[in-house]
Amino acid sequence: MRFQPYRSPSTGREVRAVLFDTFGTVVDWRTGVGRQAAAFAADRGQKLDAAAFADDWRALYQPAMEAIRTGTRDFATLDTLHRENLDQVLRHHGFNPERLDAEALEELNKSWHRLPPWPDSVEGLAAIRRCYIVGPLSNGNTSLLLFMARNAGLPWDVIIGSDMTRTYKPLPTAYLRTAEFLDLNPGEVMLAAAHNNDLHAARKAGLATAFIARPTEYGPSQTADLVPEGDWDLTASSIPELAGRLGPEPVILQ
Amino acid sequence: MRFQPYRSPSTGREVRAVLFDTFGTVVDWRTGVGRQAAAFAADRGQKLDAAAFADDWRALYQPAMEAIRTGTRDFATLDTLHRENLDQVLRHHGFNPERLDAEALEELNKSWHRLPPWPDSVEGLAAIRRCYIVGPLSNGNTSLLLFMARNAGLPWDVIIGSDMTRTYKPLPTAYLRTAEFLDLNPGEVMLAAAHNNDLHAARKAGLATAFIARPTEYGPSQTADLVPEGDWDLTASSIPELAGRLGPEPVILQ
Repeated sequence: MRFQPYRSPSTGREVRAVLFDTFGTVVDWRTGVGRQAAAFAADRGQKLDAAAFADDWRALYQPAMEAIRTGTRDFATLDTLHRENLDQVLRHHGFNPERLDAEALEELNKSWHRLPPWPDSVEGLAAIRRCYIVGPLSNGNTSLLLFMARNAGLPWDVIIGSDMTRTYKPLPTAYLRTAEFLDLNPGEVMLAAAHNNDLHAARKAGLATAFIARPTEYGPSQTADLVPEGDWDLTASSIPELAGRLGPEPVILQ
Repeated sequence: MRFQPYRSPSTGREVRAVLFDTFGTVVDWRTGVGRQAAAFAADRGQKLDAAAFADDWRALYQPAMEAIRTGTRDFATLDTLHRENLDQVLRHHGFNPERLDAEALEELNKSWHRLPPWPDSVEGLAAIRRCYIVGPLSNGNTSLLLFMARNAGLPWDVIIGSDMTRTYKPLPTAYLRTAEFLDLNPGEVMLAAAHNNDLHAARKAGLATAFIARPTEYGPSQTADLVPEGDWDLTASSIPELAGRLGPEPVILQ
């Protein structure tokens, strides 16, 4: 089966693979991490502010990667960075991590492996997969993304984790090495993301771009990334809508 | 959903991922490459011995990888090695590659991306995937294995190509780095293969092992790998049979 793929105006290329930022674009990390942290606290007879806990943990994500991006630290996986940051977040929320069971903390760290997809994600990815390669283009490591996919039912064709490119977005190599593993020209790869800065970096690296609005990723009072802030190739409010914009029903050529 | 996974007697571990050798174990390269080479020749008004062409091309596979294994050559992908070897095979079969269109040769090289699965493969992988992570553990590069999977409908959870481990089986690092990307102990990973030497190497590296008999991989007069030549954890004559041996219907614990 062949079909007429979407041609990106910005790269001048037909798109072969649509790769997704995951945290926030495909899965709802705030609800998922918050719920699991609250359950962890409840098991220990404590209460915590689930959304604040998730927000605080997530807030340590960029600084932790930055040390690796700038070369002051060797590559370490996102699982490792999350685990280091967890201790700090626990203390901030009144827990002493040294008094908690190491195995239980490891399990809590894996809450990032068990995140609910946005309600449209699985259906949308399956639709796009009919005609395009689909995969994550995430700062998550391969095993994290794999277990996330199994838990959430995300129908990826391929998972190229940041431990394979050994770098973190938004450095250009994160995008370019991913395209290289796929043996595709960067312009044949589209990044779909809910974050304008990710799309800016992808475009600079030569990728096609699609904005997917996720206006409640950071809760009801989110102020950033509500609208596209660039002339991205495509804009959609859900992944099925992106599937529609990638083309009408495919033209079967053969 | 949790279930009681298969415990490997040789590793003493519960298996979490079942990874497959691909060429010969999951797909029938001899029929697939032979058919495409014959079509290539027919398009040019020529005839060729399809099975001999496939056998000759495949015979150059081990020597090409050996230069990389021994360190006399930097890592190069299997697509690259296949393309280099193709010129030699074409000459041997009466074609001058320098007189053939480069793009057509590139297409012929991609015949390794378009191989038919054995009749039981897709059903068997889907059955195993219900309870285990499934993926290839192959000397193929990621893009080759990805396009093969899309063409043959192989339901992999994850594809860790030899360009990610940057080494070739049967070197131990090929098995060990794959387990590392999955964040699993080697003993939690099972290699399923139709080749005893692959299983010997996997066992040495600490993996669980399963032999799948593919007695016509090399045609009707195959003499090697007809039977298991080690006390592998499991032996089966098809992938669905392996699915059965990995356990009866899973015991749902929760």
